Amino acid sequence: MNAFVLRLGHRRGRDPRLTTHVALTARALGCDGIILSGEKDDSVMNSIKKIVEKWGGSFEIRYEGNWRKTIKNWKGRIVHLTMYGLPIREKINEIKKCKENLLVMVGSEKVPAEAYESSDWNISVTNQPHSEVAALAIFLDRLFRGKKLNKKFRNAGIKIIPQEKGKKTISL
Amino acid sequence: MNAFVLRLGHRRGRDPRLTTHVALTARALGCDGIILSGEKDDSVMNSIKKIVEKWGGSFEIRYEGNWRKTIKNWKGRIVHLTMYGLPIREKINEIKKCKENLLVMVGSEKVPAEAYESSDWNISVTNQPHSEVAALAIFLDRLFRGKKLNKKFRNAGIKIIPQEKGKKTISL
Repeated sequence: MNAFVLRLGHRRGRDPRLTTHVALTARALGCDGIILSGEKDDSVMNSIKKIVEKWGGSFEIRYEGNWRKTIKNWKGRIVHLTMYGLPIREKINEIKKCKENLLVMVGSEKVPAEAYESSDWNISVTNQPHSEVAALAIFLDRLFRGKKLNKKFRNAGIKIIPQEKGKKTISL
Repeated sequence: MNAFVLRLGHRRGRDPRLTTHVALTARALGCDGIILSGEKDDSVMNSIKKIVEKWGGSFEIRYEGNWRKTIKNWKGRIVHLTMYGLPIREKINEIKKCKENLLVMVGSEKVPAEAYESSDWNISVTNQPHSEVAALAIFLDRLFRGKKLNKKFRNAGIKIIPQEKGKKTISL
């Protein structure tokens, strides 16, 4: 299964850091790429690309302004992460069995009703308000458990050697 | 075990939304409170308090400007989440056994060396750059698995009824 994240409704003034966190979480936890929607924001795209270059792997970043079209043309299944959806524990095994490509939708502020209607699954990671970054992280951790958490990133320029105290990196 | 989050180095100009996401993630995933450090930011504290009032539970929010003192006076153990630390899978069972109060430290940008030195555990959720919100979410999900994910929040003014499509809330 290939997994992409679709970030809905990015706002240039308000969301750059959260959108960057969404993208880096998607990359670190095993997704193949992110599709950014909402306002086009080259500086966010460039900062994600720079991190991918430095830390390796083949994470794809692209902008598609019309998310309704992205959903309509998506070849595979769609999960929408929302605090209003069905609990992850009830549905994650069903989603894990999906062999098609998976599009994982996360909103920023208000998500239009069509996003709920067009998704195969509307999934909640708790029914409390918290964070699309947190919801995505837990969803991916459970989806890929044991398979992608220690993913190797090819062609990295830098690598961390885990330490009990302090920091150690090596340049490659 | 009671768990608090310590948010290091909050900056009023840059971090309000991320700090809010850190706090709401801590609350939704079972922590008892958050201690904010760095620049004092009443508007962030108020917006977290408003959400706690509306959605219930007894999540504590307080500001302590001197985090070195917070750490020094902490009665219990300290975990620091950092991409440079030892992998969560190697250490989580050891941490789960902790019966004392747990302080979970998350930084924003550069974290001083003392934070690494003063922690009982420096733990990485992948050794890739991503998000303190994502790292905290996965850490808490694994720490409390099955115990706090469906936590009930008392005295809530609103509650979500999970839906396959769309949104349903009830006022309490």
